[in-house]
Amino acid sequence: MLNQPFTYLLPFPGYQPSRYDNHIIRRLSDLKGQFHDEKAYEEMLAIEDTILYEVYEIKRPEVTGELLSGISIVHPGKVGDEFFMTKGHFHTVLDTAELYYCLNGEGFMVMETPEGDTAIEALSPGKVLYVPPRWAHRSVCTARQEDLITYFVYPGNAGHNYGTIEEKGFRKLIVEQGNAIAVIDNPNHKEDLQP
Amino acid sequence: MLNQPFTYLLPFPGYQPSRYDNHIIRRLSDLKGQFHDEKAYEEMLAIEDTILYEVYEIKRPEVTGELLSGISIVHPGKVGDEFFMTKGHFHTVLDTAELYYCLNGEGFMVMETPEGDTAIEALSPGKVLYVPPRWAHRSVCTARQEDLITYFVYPGNAGHNYGTIEEKGFRKLIVEQGNAIAVIDNPNHKEDLQP
Repeated sequence: MLNQPFTYLLPFPGYQPSRYDNHIIRRLSDLKGQFHDEKAYEEMLAIEDTILYEVYEIKRPEVTGELLSGISIVHPGKVGDEFFMTKGHFHTVLDTAELYYCLNGEGFMVMETPEGDTAIEALSPGKVLYVPPRWAHRSVCTARQEDLITYFVYPGNAGHNYGTIEEKGFRKLIVEQGNAIAVIDNPNHKEDLQP
Repeated sequence: MLNQPFTYLLPFPGYQPSRYDNHIIRRLSDLKGQFHDEKAYEEMLAIEDTILYEVYEIKRPEVTGELLSGISIVHPGKVGDEFFMTKGHFHTVLDTAELYYCLNGEGFMVMETPEGDTAIEALSPGKVLYVPPRWAHRSVCTARQEDLITYFVYPGNAGHNYGTIEEKGFRKLIVEQGNAIAVIDNPNHKEDLQP
């Protein structure tokens, strides 16, 4: 970790940072219980523990005033009718925002507050998304062939709370119906848990 | 200002945000005393108060946990042998960082700490620059025809301290020597001022 100014490249077309501190790989088995079609999930997992998404993190001290950044790459694919997605998380410090700049692909950010407000924003190249403090967020890739690639920035002290979403799920899911993309209520959502 | 998630586009090729709260225009007269060739500066200003750079700001509450973002556009040109540049600033809360993602053009970020450390990083499309806490920073456009366009993000509570740089200047300047770009010591730098 450098205390000098430093740079890194996000080279077209893959946008893998030219330097990074962590390369996180999340597979089907890491999202157990998150996809609503459990039979499709188990059948798919029996064949291969497919990579759903990857994150390249650039580290900084995890304190107020610093910024954490990196690249998120969600691969195309579905579990049953539900598109590949990230685990999604609240920030441990709830009152912290996150910015996403979409570099490639097509998809959605699924968001919700502890109070039950929900929001879904479409992502496409050139679009910036502001996730205000208190909003849990999950990226979903809906392109058939292309990765959804976003550059993200959040405050150094934010932290990740994955547990709440792992236990209760998001209220909304993104699925394919016919040839269209649809937002449905999550049949497995547990209403009573709070972050 | 929205407390819901929101998006904006940075459309190619100009990257002017599809929504913004402020459009700041900085002219030659706003940078009085910053260019080292004062004769060239006065001669240029007598002809026209040229626009040196523009900033599009997306507002959020100026508190810890929020992120402020926007687009900075430095136009090509020189005052004498010195390239067009931004005023440059420390953050009022010194211990706050800033991230720049270069979208277009060629240039440099000139940086220094209150203790007198200096750093200069080249900017080109696809490059991310991390300006750690405590580093004052100024963008310089060195392309002959093209705008230097960067997307910036900094913590909501950072604030801008322009006064220190206005009074003492940066230690280093970016000039043209022959057909090359050179870094020179600022002959007008005042050593004793601290932010």
